[in-house]
Amino acid sequence: MFRNDRTGRKKQVCQVAVDVFFEKGYTEASLHDIAARANISKAGIYHYFKTKSEILSCILLGLTEEGFGLVAETVTKAKSEKQDQQDVVAALIKAYAFNILKNQRISLLILRERDQLTPHHRKELLKKERTVFEMVRNELAALPELKTHFNINVITFQVISTIHWMGYWYDPEGLLSVNDVLDQMIETILTGILQNEKTE
Amino acid sequence: MFRNDRTGRKKQVCQVAVDVFFEKGYTEASLHDIAARANISKAGIYHYFKTKSEILSCILLGLTEEGFGLVAETVTKAKSEKQDQQDVVAALIKAYAFNILKNQRISLLILRERDQLTPHHRKELLKKERTVFEMVRNELAALPELKTHFNINVITFQVISTIHWMGYWYDPEGLLSVNDVLDQMIETILTGILQNEKTE
Repeated sequence: MFRNDRTGRKKQVCQVAVDVFFEKGYTEASLHDIAARANISKAGIYHYFKTKSEILSCILLGLTEEGFGLVAETVTKAKSEKQDQQDVVAALIKAYAFNILKNQRISLLILRERDQLTPHHRKELLKKERTVFEMVRNELAALPELKTHFNINVITFQVISTIHWMGYWYDPEGLLSVNDVLDQMIETILTGILQNEKTE
Repeated sequence: MFRNDRTGRKKQVCQVAVDVFFEKGYTEASLHDIAARANISKAGIYHYFKTKSEILSCILLGLTEEGFGLVAETVTKAKSEKQDQQDVVAALIKAYAFNILKNQRISLLILRERDQLTPHHRKELLKKERTVFEMVRNELAALPELKTHFNINVITFQVISTIHWMGYWYDPEGLLSVNDVLDQMIETILTGILQNEKTE
């Protein structure tokens, strides 16, 4: 129980910090702002985090790790259902994108504030991002119909870019549904990288 | 002559400021840092800019405007040579990407520091970005073989995302040449968004 409460409280501090960092910018934001918004004392925050940078690292590394877990799970599930590799890739892209969109503010913070991490934590983040990159690359490389003259790293960057950028421009209040956008994006990517045959 | 000197000096301050903002972050960077690096007095900077935010706005708006001009020029040239619309789009993507890559630091600052602009300048930037978006969209929409069930705004965002993200991950010191990456990206995009026929 105590452990759960502690984890819950720590998570709550992070959630509040996301909004504070997002709205004020990391450098301007203070532990005092976070404490006030989380309705907790500054000492209460020190109970969980030693520095402001530790909170940032917890947020950025947390999302990257969570994203990796979710996408890996989706891929495993799709494979256990013996889905076609194109469907596996489509499921991967959807899971990845949904996680970015569900955490739009954090994914923007990863872009905007990554340089504020300590060198150690920046290295950690990069390591985690590389793991995600490799997972995506492996699934793309497993497409049997992939254009043979294409460089797999460029394809992977292109897929990841398209997803992350969606977190940047996609307006949940807008006219387009997430699923429509994703279906079109997946069709564009698959037709673009596969040999010229019907992909349906 | 005097006017040119003035413009040159102003531009030099901006160039130096790009590096200072990039390395220290906008909030941490001071006019003093910029003056020291530009080998100019602080009063000298005030001669050109009233505030730090004005320098930022000059940098971010400057690149967006320059990008628009370059891309528009490329499109006009390609059309005057009566090039096929696919070639016009390819030329557009290349010109856009080369400009981003030539100004990698500024394009990252546009992402990272745009919220530091004054509301007025942020609105100006958005307006300029919308003009770029519309130009790209118009050229994409003019492709006669475009998939009819696709939403043109999503296609446009996808193209722009791919280009901007390249400024984020592309390593000029790496193994891949810019041209190889761009050729592959253009092929992926065109095959992806055009009806299923040979695009060559």
